[in-house]
Amino acid sequence: MSQQVEPIQRMTDELAKLPGIGRKSAQRLAYHLAAQSQEQVNALARALSQGRESIRLCERCGNYTAADLCAVCSDPKRREDLLCVVRDPRDVAAMERMHDYHGLYHVLHGILSPMDGIGPQDIRIRELMERLQDGQVKELILATNPDIEGEATASYIARLVKPLGVRVTRIAHGVPVGSDLEYTDEVTLSKAMEGRREL
Amino acid sequence: MSQQVEPIQRMTDELAKLPGIGRKSAQRLAYHLAAQSQEQVNALARALSQGRESIRLCERCGNYTAADLCAVCSDPKRREDLLCVVRDPRDVAAMERMHDYHGLYHVLHGILSPMDGIGPQDIRIRELMERLQDGQVKELILATNPDIEGEATASYIARLVKPLGVRVTRIAHGVPVGSDLEYTDEVTLSKAMEGRREL
Repeated sequence: MSQQVEPIQRMTDELAKLPGIGRKSAQRLAYHLAAQSQEQVNALARALSQGRESIRLCERCGNYTAADLCAVCSDPKRREDLLCVVRDPRDVAAMERMHDYHGLYHVLHGILSPMDGIGPQDIRIRELMERLQDGQVKELILATNPDIEGEATASYIARLVKPLGVRVTRIAHGVPVGSDLEYTDEVTLSKAMEGRREL
Repeated sequence: MSQQVEPIQRMTDELAKLPGIGRKSAQRLAYHLAAQSQEQVNALARALSQGRESIRLCERCGNYTAADLCAVCSDPKRREDLLCVVRDPRDVAAMERMHDYHGLYHVLHGILSPMDGIGPQDIRIRELMERLQDGQVKELILATNPDIEGEATASYIARLVKPLGVRVTRIAHGVPVGSDLEYTDEVTLSKAMEGRREL
């Protein structure tokens, strides 16, 4: 028996496809599930399958929702003149955890990456331009990640949007709060110096 | 929107029940699954649900199997006079990875733990005693974990089995191969000294 029992193997194979779960953790999870009741395992399977089924993209911003509009877009208290562009729905969740931003979002569902063959037509840039047509948005905040693709995508969008007369801003890069200067990489430090402000 | 989208929330809740997966990882997995196709998510859900459904306990040793007998018990090349007692099926998998043990197993599916109300009748000790009745087994190797419950369970079984005239042994405790004496805890070190052998 150098092989695992077939059903355990099958569970392990599928679980190991998840990000951050290696073969060893996947096997551990499979054995754990084998020791659970059928009902418990079914509850998990159902939550995943039905959960995925009921997730839709918000018609307006592309965020995940179970209705036509997401919770942000359907909230009348949000400012309609502020629009924050993010890469994917989990970035919306991160921004919302801050409880400090009261505008709307636009989710790109991807990032420009010529190396991976992802161009402007593959992410929701056309939808963004359409949203900006009515002139309601006064400021567009580009909150893509501070990496090569994120910067390139931000520059690309900035170039497209500026002619519309919309104010285009980029989130600040710098030393994270609570971190240690000594352990901050040089690129971040140089960005922090570059973005310094008068007190 | 301080809340997550409901289906994401539901997926997160179920995933967070898995061992070693905290709320943050669970949420990360939920967002990952939301971005997968329905077919991919269904494949995972099906593997878990159907996998659990087809897992049975080997009639003889209690190991996981998809048939009546597990792969070890149905292998005619295994020695029938050697029986290794382990806590659960994942311990069988660990032993089998060693490729060095050719006897059979007996899986207890638990460990004696008076604190948790788990007594001898709650784990497969009765089944073990029945297996030993025919006198085929000459040596019983107790391979429960080297912790308090594992030791107590091993002692308990040893006391029961010795009167049958079966040789009862316990796996060795000592310094793990490849580890560093400096970082070995005192209890392990003392066990290693106690179990020293002449060269």
